[in-house]
Amino acid sequence: MTDSQSVRDTGDSTDVVILGAGPAGLVLANLLLDAGVGCVVLERADREHVQTRARAGFLAANTVRVLERHGLADGLRRGGREHSVCEFRTGDGRFRLDYSGLGRGEPHTVYPQQELVTDLLTRFLAAGGDLRFATEAVAVHDPDTTQPWVETRDADGRPGRWTGRYVAGCDGRHGAARRSLPPGAVRIHRRDHGVSWLGLLAEAPPSLDAVGYAMHERGFAGHMARTPETTRYYLQCEPGTSPASWSEERIWDELTVRMRAADYGALHHGRIVQSTVVDLESDVLEPLRHGSLFLAGDAAGLISPSAAKGANLAVLAAEILAEALVDDLRNADPGPLSRYSARCLAHIWRAQEFSLWMIRLLHRAPGQDDEALFQEQLRRARVESLRTSRTHQDWFADNYVGI
Amino acid sequence: MTDSQSVRDTGDSTDVVILGAGPAGLVLANLLLDAGVGCVVLERADREHVQTRARAGFLAANTVRVLERHGLADGLRRGGREHSVCEFRTGDGRFRLDYSGLGRGEPHTVYPQQELVTDLLTRFLAAGGDLRFATEAVAVHDPDTTQPWVETRDADGRPGRWTGRYVAGCDGRHGAARRSLPPGAVRIHRRDHGVSWLGLLAEAPPSLDAVGYAMHERGFAGHMARTPETTRYYLQCEPGTSPASWSEERIWDELTVRMRAADYGALHHGRIVQSTVVDLESDVLEPLRHGSLFLAGDAAGLISPSAAKGANLAVLAAEILAEALVDDLRNADPGPLSRYSARCLAHIWRAQEFSLWMIRLLHRAPGQDDEALFQEQLRRARVESLRTSRTHQDWFADNYVGI
Repeated sequence: MTDSQSVRDTGDSTDVVILGAGPAGLVLANLLLDAGVGCVVLERADREHVQTRARAGFLAANTVRVLERHGLADGLRRGGREHSVCEFRTGDGRFRLDYSGLGRGEPHTVYPQQELVTDLLTRFLAAGGDLRFATEAVAVHDPDTTQPWVETRDADGRPGRWTGRYVAGCDGRHGAARRSLPPGAVRIHRRDHGVSWLGLLAEAPPSLDAVGYAMHERGFAGHMARTPETTRYYLQCEPGTSPASWSEERIWDELTVRMRAADYGALHHGRIVQSTVVDLESDVLEPLRHGSLFLAGDAAGLISPSAAKGANLAVLAAEILAEALVDDLRNADPGPLSRYSARCLAHIWRAQEFSLWMIRLLHRAPGQDDEALFQEQLRRARVESLRTSRTHQDWFADNYVGI
Repeated sequence: MTDSQSVRDTGDSTDVVILGAGPAGLVLANLLLDAGVGCVVLERADREHVQTRARAGFLAANTVRVLERHGLADGLRRGGREHSVCEFRTGDGRFRLDYSGLGRGEPHTVYPQQELVTDLLTRFLAAGGDLRFATEAVAVHDPDTTQPWVETRDADGRPGRWTGRYVAGCDGRHGAARRSLPPGAVRIHRRDHGVSWLGLLAEAPPSLDAVGYAMHERGFAGHMARTPETTRYYLQCEPGTSPASWSEERIWDELTVRMRAADYGALHHGRIVQSTVVDLESDVLEPLRHGSLFLAGDAAGLISPSAAKGANLAVLAAEILAEALVDDLRNADPGPLSRYSARCLAHIWRAQEFSLWMIRLLHRAPGQDDEALFQEQLRRARVESLRTSRTHQDWFADNYVGI
């Protein structure tokens, strides 16, 4: 790094300035580094924080393939566990789908996102990569030129700048990349699904050897294994609910009722160490490029967690973007980069479509009007179809694990 | 029949009074007659009218099986033609699905409904069945007793009455059965899908060897073979449109544009001999019984024609109802009759679910708001999934032909 005076004047420069050290940014960074393309990763949080952010945990088979193809899968091969059964519980009974025997026959790999992130950044740094923690991207300037630059601020508020040929915005929905898009440059398709979940992390072993989806008159409840000692639960709640209104006692009581523990086995209780309200919403930006600024991961679009697609889309986008940037910067072929947005969006909309299908499967339509009652009957028919139709199960499996 | 004086006093009686000589009523009548259960069919129209009413034409494999099982399939075996390909056309291209090679591998049998009706009533009359044409059911009385009776009126306005142990309402959405349900006895689930079709019958041979589904910015257009000389076309139109505002010239111009005839081959033009506006709507009655009155066919529920399920559901319901009535009246086992409604409704809701899926596949969501634009992207993703995903195609085939 140059001295602080020159940082303030002209700053540093590289080929690709990557904003955000999440799965998208770190996969992109590793792939660029391996290909000899200069890059830097700017991350607002410190290393400790980045390595412990609990997020998603279900990796699609294609995500594992991408990581393996690029030598990024050592950790998840050691620490990941295959998962291939989900169980649906309703007032009419329960049924299980072992999706490793349906459709393409692919399982999920359960591997907490913070461990994947730790693997990715450890490898990047060990290979000599440039990753700046505690460096907040404030804004992307001149994205419509060939010399975009990123205005930064460190933990002490000191300004800096990074100039690149391209900027990759992998800094999430509230990051500088999205904020720096000129009005009208990119269309944002939004949808509020009208459903909220209380997302819980319990210090308790999983209660069933499957992902559990419980549909109950009181609302949806979900169960997802994280590690042998921790389990993620979800409780549908009123939009606008405060997590504080859910005591541990109320949480376990409600999980017990909705998961129908009396019929299907008691839940392993434990301390609730995380409790946040998640509003199920989606947005998709189009195109995923403005000049020299590219978007990937949550910066490109939000997807509701109902089908666990977010991190998987991020890794997929990172690979597509990395290969396109290498083609452009090393092989002077701008074609793939020009097709990046359309290629990614095709995957994103397919995932959004399935994600909304899952939301409609798991939740009653809100309200008690004719439309809601009609939709509720259709929803039940859909569950019954999924229970009984092999071709529906094959389709489900392909979409549930696929990306 | 007794003389007119006694008709007016006590009328005639039988075991099952069947209202309506459509597919549901006539399959039911044939099955009851074969099983030795007394029945009469009361039909408002005259025989000529009944035998020429053009309605549906696509018979599901299960419908053919039901008709074959009961010796009612001679005509369709001679005159029906197998059909197993549908072609989707969009601005991105076209693709074909041969559903006889997908899912369960079942084809449709194309056989105009009026010919099936003619077969069924000819056979019923030849076997000694009692079918009263030009006899309108005005109302069903005392349905909550074990002696329900049907008030009738003949073509000259003369009153009559038929008493039975049971009444089967197979007389459509505007028939006496529905009208005679006491308020609140049966819930009606309704949905207006917000889409209208101009339904056309052209004196022209089919223009392609497939069912054609064309998605166009100007709206949906459909093509369905009927006979070697006639073809059914559909044009999405504004709800409330008058068929009179669609001249033959305008119809063919619009079909040409939406079917993308310039890209995929000219249409065979011909005289338009039928033109009606169909509002895509659904309703489902629940339960399908009130005391001694049972509902089947359109009287039990309307389904949009988007997936050609109406006549197939009617035949399925008629078989279930016939077997249940025989169990009750000949074997003194009321169990199947008590389960008739739930069994039928399971099939009806599955069909409604698929039918709505088809509507959403074929039509843009109305409006230009964020929700409509989001849904349009999802719709395109769905089309693309159907084009490329074998498991999606298998699921489609099973639902498209299945019942």
